[in-house]
Amino acid sequence: MRRLRLSQRAISTPSSPIRKLAFFAQQAEQRGVNILRLNIGQPDIPTPPEFFNSMKKFNNAVLEYGSSEGDVEIRREWSKYIKRVNNLDIPPEHFQITVGASEALIFAFMTCCDPGDEVIVFDPTYANYIGFAAISGVNLVPVRCELDSNFKLPEVAEIEKHISNRTRAILLCSPNNPTGTVYSDNDLKLLLEICEENNIFLVVDETYREIVFDDRPFYSIFNVAPSNERVIVVDSLSKRFSLCGARLGCLITSNNDVRKAILNIAQARLAPPTVEQFAAAEMLSILGAEQIEKTKKTYQVRRQALFESYREISGVSLLPSMGAFYSMVELPIEDATDFCRFMLTDFVYNGKTIFFAPGDGFFIESGRGKNMVRVAYVLEPELLIESANLLDLGLKSYRKNYI
Amino acid sequence: MRRLRLSQRAISTPSSPIRKLAFFAQQAEQRGVNILRLNIGQPDIPTPPEFFNSMKKFNNAVLEYGSSEGDVEIRREWSKYIKRVNNLDIPPEHFQITVGASEALIFAFMTCCDPGDEVIVFDPTYANYIGFAAISGVNLVPVRCELDSNFKLPEVAEIEKHISNRTRAILLCSPNNPTGTVYSDNDLKLLLEICEENNIFLVVDETYREIVFDDRPFYSIFNVAPSNERVIVVDSLSKRFSLCGARLGCLITSNNDVRKAILNIAQARLAPPTVEQFAAAEMLSILGAEQIEKTKKTYQVRRQALFESYREISGVSLLPSMGAFYSMVELPIEDATDFCRFMLTDFVYNGKTIFFAPGDGFFIESGRGKNMVRVAYVLEPELLIESANLLDLGLKSYRKNYI
Repeated sequence: MRRLRLSQRAISTPSSPIRKLAFFAQQAEQRGVNILRLNIGQPDIPTPPEFFNSMKKFNNAVLEYGSSEGDVEIRREWSKYIKRVNNLDIPPEHFQITVGASEALIFAFMTCCDPGDEVIVFDPTYANYIGFAAISGVNLVPVRCELDSNFKLPEVAEIEKHISNRTRAILLCSPNNPTGTVYSDNDLKLLLEICEENNIFLVVDETYREIVFDDRPFYSIFNVAPSNERVIVVDSLSKRFSLCGARLGCLITSNNDVRKAILNIAQARLAPPTVEQFAAAEMLSILGAEQIEKTKKTYQVRRQALFESYREISGVSLLPSMGAFYSMVELPIEDATDFCRFMLTDFVYNGKTIFFAPGDGFFIESGRGKNMVRVAYVLEPELLIESANLLDLGLKSYRKNYI
Repeated sequence: MRRLRLSQRAISTPSSPIRKLAFFAQQAEQRGVNILRLNIGQPDIPTPPEFFNSMKKFNNAVLEYGSSEGDVEIRREWSKYIKRVNNLDIPPEHFQITVGASEALIFAFMTCCDPGDEVIVFDPTYANYIGFAAISGVNLVPVRCELDSNFKLPEVAEIEKHISNRTRAILLCSPNNPTGTVYSDNDLKLLLEICEENNIFLVVDETYREIVFDDRPFYSIFNVAPSNERVIVVDSLSKRFSLCGARLGCLITSNNDVRKAILNIAQARLAPPTVEQFAAAEMLSILGAEQIEKTKKTYQVRRQALFESYREISGVSLLPSMGAFYSMVELPIEDATDFCRFMLTDFVYNGKTIFFAPGDGFFIESGRGKNMVRVAYVLEPELLIESANLLDLGLKSYRKNYI
């Protein structure tokens, strides 16, 4: 048979750096190795029982399609939740419920950009943005951020240098995946000014909104600009409620044209899952600031355990992350993908090893991040401290045998 | 503020003909009107209790992400189900679980086509294909099918006329939405030959696979070509198990390159919903041919009720549909969208009205289908007979007042 041609966009969609070594992890587990999984932002904190309790109450005879824009109840309760916890007034009509934040980002790319258009992102960036851009034909234009400054935003002039006549949006993730950086209200104002100046969209991924440490206040872009038509917020229940598997996110904007265009796309894919929306709506009506405060404190303790144990390892560099539950960590090696694979295929200590996500998959600029890993601190502090020991031993073994 | 520009693809994504009049239906319901909803393929047959029972057994503490390719259990049970019910040997590894058949179709478009590439479809076509094509930049090339012949496939030469050097696939929905046409094994063979000849993919949407009437055997494309690398099958649990709201579909192909490329896209969007996969896997392990047989018979009785009551209405044309649960119906009017809106805004009889999907939204060729509606016979026979009466009265009232 003549070889069937696949599309260029399919061929150019990279495999996820978070998941591409999963096969080696499976094999290690089959050998009986206990893997500390720090590769993926999969919290180990229990999902609120309110979610499961509500799910069990679903008793319609037919599991029907929901509304394409998301069901009335979840849009209303999410809006009230944001009022209660973030003191922001966002009407339910401004919400488009999506299958995870992933779908919200795909919708944003599809709606703001045609193939060949550009979106400014800060590099390193959430790896899956690269996949969303590939399938929607969008060129991500990276603006460099550096570990030395804890990945703070560069000067306005530096950002503006990257804007062309194909630029349609700036995309910011705050608190940031993969760096843990939290941007200030001033950062947000400056970015919005650049967007105003250039008549482009500002898309802010606030998936980790409330997870900010050290009593730092968190500013949503909606605090800065409550009803600016160029602002699109992406949100998700996955992380703050340990609800990754529910696949519930949303896109919020006061821009009617954007919501209307997105609704047409949303209608084509029909609706988000029904039972999850039902259960999440009730959960959101019950939970409030106390629950989030607890989650935040849990991650802050872990952040500290990670930072303090990893900084002691010879040749390892990191700064304390400010929010979310990620840290980019520099290692004294040249090829972190090779090292991460080594830890899964060749290393074991007391029956255990560690699984990190190789750093270069989070950089758009080629050649960067090769000596870095992204660590998701989604495990108990004592396991993080244990992972530091495994990393130390692993680095020694790897450098002795492979360098 | 200067007006922000939306993408061309967003602007060109049509609203769904199935859902675009939903607002008028809501308003009618608020006035207390009882609407017979024949616009949407939302079965009223109860979801198998096995699904809900299994869902209630989910008791992980954390609702974690599933695998990007779909969880092991659902892939295994879906494969076994197809063996049991369709006597086809499809290994679990050939399944990519998706968020509804919708996502499977988007993945297929993204993987087979770059923007500007073409896919041959038979016109009328499932309206949402038009949306998927718009967002993925694919040009759907319509090949005419006619109501007079119950929308049978045209001659091979006629189909081949539409193939260009940008054609990447033929997409067939069988049993067909919106026409109810079921294609024979010979039809499938001929299409596959055309695809072989032109080295393109054959994508078959078998969402309604088992719902075929009059003891007609149903041939899956896998019966014709069990392991042909150019064949991609799209499947779904939504219709045959009344599980629309679970959002579980799949894409099946023996083509490793296709599955590998799709997995990269699938990783970017992370995973399908976890609890649904868990519940559906158990349900699939229990249900078999008897359950499907019952569902099929239920729809066959409805098909008959629809056909016999609608054919009696003056000026109305339809043929008995062969499968799925749709019929394209020709009405003695010029603008079915206007008539469908009229039925929601101005018509009521004994407190009731009907909601149809306007036909032109299912045609790619401009100007066709304007005097048609798509009827989804997802209600009890007596309600379908009642809908015929409402249609008769509605047509009389509309024609008296508006023509």
